[in-house]
Amino acid sequence: MAELALGIDLGGTKIAGALVTREGTVVAEVRAPTRPEEGVEPVIGRMADCIRALQAQAGAGHRIVGIGIGAAGSTDHVRGVVIMGSNLRWVNVPLRDRLLAHLGDAWTGPISVAKDTNAAVLGELLYGAGRGAHTILYVTVGTGIGGGLVLEGRLYHGVSGGAADLGHLIVETDGPLCGCGKRGCVEALASGPAIARQAREQLAAGRPSILADRPADTLTAVDVVEAAQRGDALAREIITLAGQRLGMVLAWCVDVVNPERIIIGGGVAAAGDLLFEPVRQTVAVRALPSNVEAVRIVPAGLGANSGEIGAAALVWAGAA
Amino acid sequence: MAELALGIDLGGTKIAGALVTREGTVVAEVRAPTRPEEGVEPVIGRMADCIRALQAQAGAGHRIVGIGIGAAGSTDHVRGVVIMGSNLRWVNVPLRDRLLAHLGDAWTGPISVAKDTNAAVLGELLYGAGRGAHTILYVTVGTGIGGGLVLEGRLYHGVSGGAADLGHLIVETDGPLCGCGKRGCVEALASGPAIARQAREQLAAGRPSILADRPADTLTAVDVVEAAQRGDALAREIITLAGQRLGMVLAWCVDVVNPERIIIGGGVAAAGDLLFEPVRQTVAVRALPSNVEAVRIVPAGLGANSGEIGAAALVWAGAA
Repeated sequence: MAELALGIDLGGTKIAGALVTREGTVVAEVRAPTRPEEGVEPVIGRMADCIRALQAQAGAGHRIVGIGIGAAGSTDHVRGVVIMGSNLRWVNVPLRDRLLAHLGDAWTGPISVAKDTNAAVLGELLYGAGRGAHTILYVTVGTGIGGGLVLEGRLYHGVSGGAADLGHLIVETDGPLCGCGKRGCVEALASGPAIARQAREQLAAGRPSILADRPADTLTAVDVVEAAQRGDALAREIITLAGQRLGMVLAWCVDVVNPERIIIGGGVAAAGDLLFEPVRQTVAVRALPSNVEAVRIVPAGLGANSGEIGAAALVWAGAA
Repeated sequence: MAELALGIDLGGTKIAGALVTREGTVVAEVRAPTRPEEGVEPVIGRMADCIRALQAQAGAGHRIVGIGIGAAGSTDHVRGVVIMGSNLRWVNVPLRDRLLAHLGDAWTGPISVAKDTNAAVLGELLYGAGRGAHTILYVTVGTGIGGGLVLEGRLYHGVSGGAADLGHLIVETDGPLCGCGKRGCVEALASGPAIARQAREQLAAGRPSILADRPADTLTAVDVVEAAQRGDALAREIITLAGQRLGMVLAWCVDVVNPERIIIGGGVAAAGDLLFEPVRQTVAVRALPSNVEAVRIVPAGLGANSGEIGAAALVWAGAA
């Protein structure tokens, strides 16, 4: 009987579930809206519905060996609790216990809960750009900036689950105000919203750009990345600056963690070498030469379903 | 028959060896000058002499179970090689093999080689300020700034032995020139020599201080720390600033590693709360609140013989 892992990516807008083989192949998937505004229990109810739907799809020929959940927030992986998920509007939600209560007899096996970046780094380790490496720093650059660490082949959580929480490392002491209340966090300088804000500011100041026709209030980082790829000077300048600021943070990480690989994912990573080259150059001039020599900085290898595949990797890596 | 570890602290000026019990008690010690200017082999010869002298002192009633060496430089602990030790003037010295050659039949047991900060963090873990903790960042602030990491109870080396190499994390992009060729490294801002330099600069600019009588060229960080402890405003300002800059680096480390304890040793740590309070305050306002809550920042617990006790801890921790 073939074995499958059931992976769920719990984000602020959608719940994405999949059945994933040990080789990382998705054999079935399901989607539901998160709708955090309805409260915690309805969200967990929809997660339970997704699980039952996938169990039905697995059918009699397959055995689901475990459920892995990557959640958009900080987690206590030992107790299966989401400590704080701002997009989910969750604080101290005992996700594993509530989900087991919703599922009743339908599931009595193991459930692993991790922050989504920890699921992502395991997914990259097993099936993506981390294959063959043992010590990996994964960084996502999207709406926020976060990270996950695999050290010597194992997920490293830190003492309170806060390892590789890179978004609020301060890059510029007098930089722009961050959502967290501090100034100059890398998330306030190099995330998708920060890139879009910088473009709006420069356009408002009259800088010429192919983005100048666009209504400023609809401008996103995706637009800036596309303009940069079409050669727009302003957009390239903004992406380069984001890469340099991200590179400053990664240079520190290189000297603290001495990883073998740094994997960058998230929407902004779609900028490709326009982002990666300034990242690599900044790391190369700022970190210790021997540590720079030891690390490769590469794009994430998993694309579609990376959240669910990472969540399933929690099961295959025995993180339950 | 009582078991002992033989620990050797190999520094740029002296070789310090000791026999240490499993409980961390020093039962015999020996000293020799390093004299790196004489070349590699004479230094290793003096290390071998120290080992034979300690073997003789152990006598028949004790068994030496292993030799641990903490070296002032980066090391390949697997091969027992000192990769680069600037104060030793060593590059790629196969210390374990050469030492075994010098010792011949006198020693055929295990020899562990580690950078001195890795020996120090193990010493603190087993016998000092790290007791009871499992995830510890050790930082030394003296002539240089360096670190060692214990993660989940085990020494963490990084992929090329460069983990926790904190001295060259860049704190101020346009800061003073560092010995490494970069600008604004924490070592150029908060190490002993940096503290002494800042005092000389301020005194030369006419700032009043009880240090003003001293010949500027003999002024050291020890003098600045003593003046600060006596209430001198200039000296306090310089130590506070060093603490804040060190705190910036440690805040980043807190969000990357999420340690349970940060232990600060080295000569500058003798400043006590004059240094530790600005460190703690800076970490508290710059790192993630949940990560700040999880960590205690404390002075090193081992004083005299800490180098040899740390080196012996390499044996007791099974790092061979």
